[in-house]
Amino acid sequence: MSRVLVLNGPNLGRLGSREPDVYGAQDLSALRALLAERAVEGTEIDLRQTDDEAELIHWLYEAVDTSTPVILNPAAFTHYSYALSDAAKLVTKAGIPLIEVHISNPHAREEFRHTSVISSVATGTIAGFGFDSYVLALVALGQG
Amino acid sequence: MSRVLVLNGPNLGRLGSREPDVYGAQDLSALRALLAERAVEGTEIDLRQTDDEAELIHWLYEAVDTSTPVILNPAAFTHYSYALSDAAKLVTKAGIPLIEVHISNPHAREEFRHTSVISSVATGTIAGFGFDSYVLALVALGQG
Amino acid sequence: MSRVLVLNGPNLGRLGSREPDVYGAQDLSALRALLAERAVEGTEIDLRQTDDEAELIHWLYEAVDTSTPVILNPAAFTHYSYALSDAAKLVTKAGIPLIEVHISNPHAREEFRHTSVISSVATGTIAGFGFDSYVLALVALGQG
Amino acid sequence: MSRVLVLNGPNLGRLGSREPDVYGAQDLSALRALLAERAVEGTEIDLRQTDDEAELIHWLYEAVDTSTPVILNPAAFTHYSYALSDAAKLVTKAGIPLIEVHISNPHAREEFRHTSVISSVATGTIAGFGFDSYVLALVALGQG
Amino acid sequence: MSRVLVLNGPNLGRLGSREPDVYGAQDLSALRALLAERAVEGTEIDLRQTDDEAELIHWLYEAVDTSTPVILNPAAFTHYSYALSDAAKLVTKAGIPLIEVHISNPHAREEFRHTSVISSVATGTIAGFGFDSYVLALVALGQG
Amino acid sequence: MSRVLVLNGPNLGRLGSREPDVYGAQDLSALRALLAERAVEGTEIDLRQTDDEAELIHWLYEAVDTSTPVILNPAAFTHYSYALSDAAKLVTKAGIPLIEVHISNPHAREEFRHTSVISSVATGTIAGFGFDSYVLALVALGQG
Amino acid sequence: MSRVLVLNGPNLGRLGSREPDVYGAQDLSALRALLAERAVEGTEIDLRQTDDEAELIHWLYEAVDTSTPVILNPAAFTHYSYALSDAAKLVTKAGIPLIEVHISNPHAREEFRHTSVISSVATGTIAGFGFDSYVLALVALGQG
Amino acid sequence: MSRVLVLNGPNLGRLGSREPDVYGAQDLSALRALLAERAVEGTEIDLRQTDDEAELIHWLYEAVDTSTPVILNPAAFTHYSYALSDAAKLVTKAGIPLIEVHISNPHAREEFRHTSVISSVATGTIAGFGFDSYVLALVALGQG
Amino acid sequence: MSRVLVLNGPNLGRLGSREPDVYGAQDLSALRALLAERAVEGTEIDLRQTDDEAELIHWLYEAVDTSTPVILNPAAFTHYSYALSDAAKLVTKAGIPLIEVHISNPHAREEFRHTSVISSVATGTIAGFGFDSYVLALVALGQG
Amino acid sequence: MSRVLVLNGPNLGRLGSREPDVYGAQDLSALRALLAERAVEGTEIDLRQTDDEAELIHWLYEAVDTSTPVILNPAAFTHYSYALSDAAKLVTKAGIPLIEVHISNPHAREEFRHTSVISSVATGTIAGFGFDSYVLALVALGQG
Amino acid sequence: MSRVLVLNGPNLGRLGSREPDVYGAQDLSALRALLAERAVEGTEIDLRQTDDEAELIHWLYEAVDTSTPVILNPAAFTHYSYALSDAAKLVTKAGIPLIEVHISNPHAREEFRHTSVISSVATGTIAGFGFDSYVLALVALGQG
Amino acid sequence: MSRVLVLNGPNLGRLGSREPDVYGAQDLSALRALLAERAVEGTEIDLRQTDDEAELIHWLYEAVDTSTPVILNPAAFTHYSYALSDAAKLVTKAGIPLIEVHISNPHAREEFRHTSVISSVATGTIAGFGFDSYVLALVALGQG
Repeated sequence: MSRVLVLNGPNLGRLGSREPDVYGAQDLSALRALLAERAVEGTEIDLRQTDDEAELIHWLYEAVDTSTPVILNPAAFTHYSYALSDAAKLVTKAGIPLIEVHISNPHAREEFRHTSVISSVATGTIAGFGFDSYVLALVALGQG
Repeated sequence: MSRVLVLNGPNLGRLGSREPDVYGAQDLSALRALLAERAVEGTEIDLRQTDDEAELIHWLYEAVDTSTPVILNPAAFTHYSYALSDAAKLVTKAGIPLIEVHISNPHAREEFRHTSVISSVATGTIAGFGFDSYVLALVALGQG
Repeated sequence: MSRVLVLNGPNLGRLGSREPDVYGAQDLSALRALLAERAVEGTEIDLRQTDDEAELIHWLYEAVDTSTPVILNPAAFTHYSYALSDAAKLVTKAGIPLIEVHISNPHAREEFRHTSVISSVATGTIAGFGFDSYVLALVALGQG
Repeated sequence: MSRVLVLNGPNLGRLGSREPDVYGAQDLSALRALLAERAVEGTEIDLRQTDDEAELIHWLYEAVDTSTPVILNPAAFTHYSYALSDAAKLVTKAGIPLIEVHISNPHAREEFRHTSVISSVATGTIAGFGFDSYVLALVALGQG
Repeated sequence: MSRVLVLNGPNLGRLGSREPDVYGAQDLSALRALLAERAVEGTEIDLRQTDDEAELIHWLYEAVDTSTPVILNPAAFTHYSYALSDAAKLVTKAGIPLIEVHISNPHAREEFRHTSVISSVATGTIAGFGFDSYVLALVALGQG
Repeated sequence: MSRVLVLNGPNLGRLGSREPDVYGAQDLSALRALLAERAVEGTEIDLRQTDDEAELIHWLYEAVDTSTPVILNPAAFTHYSYALSDAAKLVTKAGIPLIEVHISNPHAREEFRHTSVISSVATGTIAGFGFDSYVLALVALGQG
Repeated sequence: MSRVLVLNGPNLGRLGSREPDVYGAQDLSALRALLAERAVEGTEIDLRQTDDEAELIHWLYEAVDTSTPVILNPAAFTHYSYALSDAAKLVTKAGIPLIEVHISNPHAREEFRHTSVISSVATGTIAGFGFDSYVLALVALGQG
Repeated sequence: MSRVLVLNGPNLGRLGSREPDVYGAQDLSALRALLAERAVEGTEIDLRQTDDEAELIHWLYEAVDTSTPVILNPAAFTHYSYALSDAAKLVTKAGIPLIEVHISNPHAREEFRHTSVISSVATGTIAGFGFDSYVLALVALGQG
Repeated sequence: MSRVLVLNGPNLGRLGSREPDVYGAQDLSALRALLAERAVEGTEIDLRQTDDEAELIHWLYEAVDTSTPVILNPAAFTHYSYALSDAAKLVTKAGIPLIEVHISNPHAREEFRHTSVISSVATGTIAGFGFDSYVLALVALGQG
Repeated sequence: MSRVLVLNGPNLGRLGSREPDVYGAQDLSALRALLAERAVEGTEIDLRQTDDEAELIHWLYEAVDTSTPVILNPAAFTHYSYALSDAAKLVTKAGIPLIEVHISNPHAREEFRHTSVISSVATGTIAGFGFDSYVLALVALGQG
Repeated sequence: MSRVLVLNGPNLGRLGSREPDVYGAQDLSALRALLAERAVEGTEIDLRQTDDEAELIHWLYEAVDTSTPVILNPAAFTHYSYALSDAAKLVTKAGIPLIEVHISNPHAREEFRHTSVISSVATGTIAGFGFDSYVLALVALGQG
Repeated sequence: MSRVLVLNGPNLGRLGSREPDVYGAQDLSALRALLAERAVEGTEIDLRQTDDEAELIHWLYEAVDTSTPVILNPAAFTHYSYALSDAAKLVTKAGIPLIEVHISNPHAREEFRHTSVISSVATGTIAGFGFDSYVLALVALGQG
């Protein structure tokens, strides 16, 4: 059985109540259910969320150590966490895919959201499709 | 029968011979075949390429007039063609999805490729997955 | 009988349907009619639109070769087409008036619309009056 | 009888003697005469000039309080007076037209003249036509 | 009985010993005492400090979930933590007041302290009054 | 009997009618009444407004010469008047408190409002609380 | 008998009490006396000070109209008053010398003091010599 | 027989009449004659001009497909056409020389002409020698 | 017996496997051994690593409270953690040496690594010597 | 007998023939003669010129070692030689006056001439008076 | 007999051993031989190299004084030596050609090499052709 | 017997008298003595100082030619001498260590001292330890 790490950064635990016009009205358990449903058989969806930069970094180490592909929504860390960027680079340098996803389209929002310190070290980026950004990432991994 | 416009900007007609280490060794007909194969039944893939800004703009008008969803790889126009950007906005303002795709990861390349004048008016963006960026866009449209 | 070239850049052929809250609900034929009505007797309004940078440039050559005054709405080319700028300079350097017009007020819109590469080589600029920007340009030429 | 406020900012009282190659050889009374002649019957031209930022602001209040349309040449205030900009915004927010005019073409002059803090709050802008910039503004108001 | 969350960011636990010329010689327990004394009757002062970005974010969630007004001194997070900024936005978007306070005047210090990523999502900002910045925030909340 | 100078910069005389959604629907006399009511006994509220940079500067001299604390809302002067800034510095260098207040939150508005040339020389800054910004300043002075 | 206009901008009326470590402990009447003493016989020193931009501009017109050389300390206006700059240009374009002076060395002070909008239109600049900056200007005019 | 492609960008078809003080009084046919005369025997000069970005790009493809060396005067495209830049890179990556030429010295002209998006992908650059820039390029190719 | 705190920031726990061409093939335990060997007798090497900003900050407090000198490799925090910078300042302001070290030479790597928010508050900086950067820091402290 | 060092930087040895419209038609010996004539009795003018940065620096050391006041025209070194700037600082830190002079007005010339790395460490600056800039400096030293 | 000065700036004396992949494996004597061979009869090649800014400047004076055309490879001075730039301007202002050459293509290298302070005062620029850049310059002078 | 070149740039010959609060009160001969004492047996310390850019460059050539390791304090050249940077690159490209040292901490001083054009080509950098920066460099070379 294979596994996919679906890692979510700061404030994404508040999905459903946080700016529903931007992020939609559903929460992370709805996302987990959606991905479970959309995953190919034999793929376990290991969805987690944290507001803690270090915890997110540790999950990326886990991906390296277990050769598990990663779907990463870095949320606000996207714009400044070089620590997370360095950890993401550990993943892709090890030949493990790491896909950066965003629910909304950062380029259609505030100026500071136009800069990503993660994109240059990610395998690829998918943004703007709501929860489907994750589904597409699953497809990109060959597991959706 | 539904249709998807898969529009490709400047120099993409040279795929296969252009920097194969960056863009892969396959050409547009291979891409057309791949998308045809991956499309859901009843979806026609209308893949086109042009180096001409005006022609690309006209194809976007066609999308508006026929309510056809668009997968757009703006190539180098990504970085400066506000004319294309305004045309792309016509599409999404009309409620028709337009997905920006890139074969390679622009953020891992030259500085000037980090700026997109298209992203802010696109429905969403998918970058870095080779030809699979297009396949994912097809899935995003519910047609792959 | 004298003539005025009224040249319109990319996406202006979609007037009427394009963002009516910004550009108004009337199309180019309405503009042509309005200008014909407002022109002084004996002035022919030669209104054209193109999304093609080269075609727009050629129309400016025609202005030079026939000493015809120009009303130019460069649309999105305003912000990056140095090729158009160089051509516009050919017109004004030949002593023929070229008036830059904008339907809406670019300074009240997105940041990138605050820069014009055309203004410095135009005779003058008129912006923000809807179709009346063109009418005023006609008056400025002594033909409205 | 209707009225138009034609307000002129710093140093414009020196017209005629100030850099005649840039601003022409005629002074403000010539401008007043020109506008009076070009105004439609029943329109009073109330042309004023001041070098005082506060006085110019007060005249804009007067426009608000009397619902009088404004033709404003902010001169050097164009480039830094946010106080004037805020006052101009009072006028247009009240639904009264305020047209920014410039005698010369600021974009063909020094770098600092390329920035206007007034344009974004004006109804429209007319620049580069000598005294005719004012005449065109009068036309734009439907009073010339 | 109502409550106010008084949240303090990194290094503020060192008050009293940290640069006393800038931050004063009193520590957080003195601040707690001061606020308790200055609070209106029936208002509980819940003063906390953390150097941990995630913990600070969680306290903001608690504010959202319990509808408790917040006085936030983000300290160094002020200048880069978009994660905290997004969390603060959750508070104010929920209609709960969040007041940004600073003990010293950031604009009179190093250049990097002139930028706040928190101010734009805060209800208001109070800076430069020593511990009284907090007292004033309490008054602003109607609880001091 | 002690006194507080409450000085208001350009366009603040239009409060009540100026963008009520931003500045509220009450005017300066309502503010004067509010402050009079909130002031401690024996404190005279000397509230003034001017659109004139020089007059505002002179009032600051008066503060220096009479050792009167100042509550200053510099309005648009905030963003460019180094003359006012130098005068404000005269006040605080003389050991007299000068508090910068803003009715709305400048950081949540246009880009140019994010820069203050006053903050670095003020005792402290209070922004975003409507008229209560002034009340808080009064409290900060120990007179509210 | 010839005359020299010695014009002083905002806050210079406070000399003697304003930051004596920067500007010295003497006031403008001491400066007037010094200049009178140092002027060649037959030269009248007409020293004035104003905090009002418009008044300073008018004095420059007076210089133009009476062909009187100018010594100008623009103080804080140095850094933003394009209105004053345009007026100063009227003086030098008329062939009348206008010398920009500064008591202290602006380049050894705050960053914003490094920019002068006056220097490019002045005959010359003298900075950093205390009151002697004025004396040197007098010498430069051949009148000291 | 070998061939050299001498490709000219926008507005160069107007040579002879366009700003003769900058570009000289001779036109493209004079240039063609000059190059024919200066070419070594057996070298065909294939000189073309277009104002069309796409056509210029296609000519570069032709160079790739026929292994023909290129002399390219990108004119205004120099400063913004990343599409042309990407096409030029196809040429040099294929091991075919592409020499960027300019008639005048762009660094001695307007600021925007100081930036070239072509230089970094060209074999070399020759600028400032009038028509001789082309002759020198011919020599550089070993064909002049 | 004296002690040295050797503190390592994010991702340094992955040394040995992380980009060995940049950071070398040895891990932190090798570093600990090396430093233990190179330390003067009686000096205890207390080497720690964390990916957690707050934990790193707390270790700096411990340094302050126990007057222990610090060798700090801030890793990616170098480029944005003002919280860490403020904590480091607590150390050096207390008169305790804090030496910033880097294994590789940040100036020979990506642009974002050229900026350090730590250097200005450190006693000194040593970069580019591999593990020897730490050894040199030990020597600098008089303990190697 | 006292002495003044009049030091001239690169290309000033070409005065008289170098751009006479900017620098005048007289050479350095004329300047030497002028200064000798204008110096107070007992003051020796030691005028030197060099194109060599190191030599100029050594002359400044000589000034320090002999406590000789300096008039320095750094010419092009003004804009980039931090080595010269550090040496000039040695002079003024030793309490010896060093006056920066310029023949022409750098602010009325090319952009790069608007920056001086010398001004912040000079006693004062005099620019724009032709050779009289030196004479004024002599007066400023009390020796002219 | 005519002469050409071929002047080479810092580090070019190390050609042959310095980064042979960038600059080629041949040294300056090979360049001298090549130019001698390629020069037209009767043209003496006077090739020199120096690492000394002042010496290079003096050679340019020699060019002025003897009306000798110059081929100048300014090497690293290209990017900052305004002193050299001013001297080069002396040459071209005297009507003597000065051609800037570069062996490699500076635009394809580090960012700092994209800026030239020499180009704007040179007759023309030739870059990217190895030693042939010099040969082409010789041809440009009509002496190769 | 091995040797180390200890090269010092402009104004370092004035150590001891130059800003003793920044650079300490000891001069270069004290430094030479210190290094001689701290060097391992058999290592000759060849300490030199120059204010001449070319001489410093030549010493780096000497290092290349004799394979001698270098300790370089570039002083003010650090911030602009690309010529020195290119020469330093010759050293490290030849596999010879070159260590950049600074006596004080440049990041704690003026803004312009935060940029180094040397660091990216040096083996490593040591800054902020007074004369011990050199001693540490000696240790880094294995000779201290």
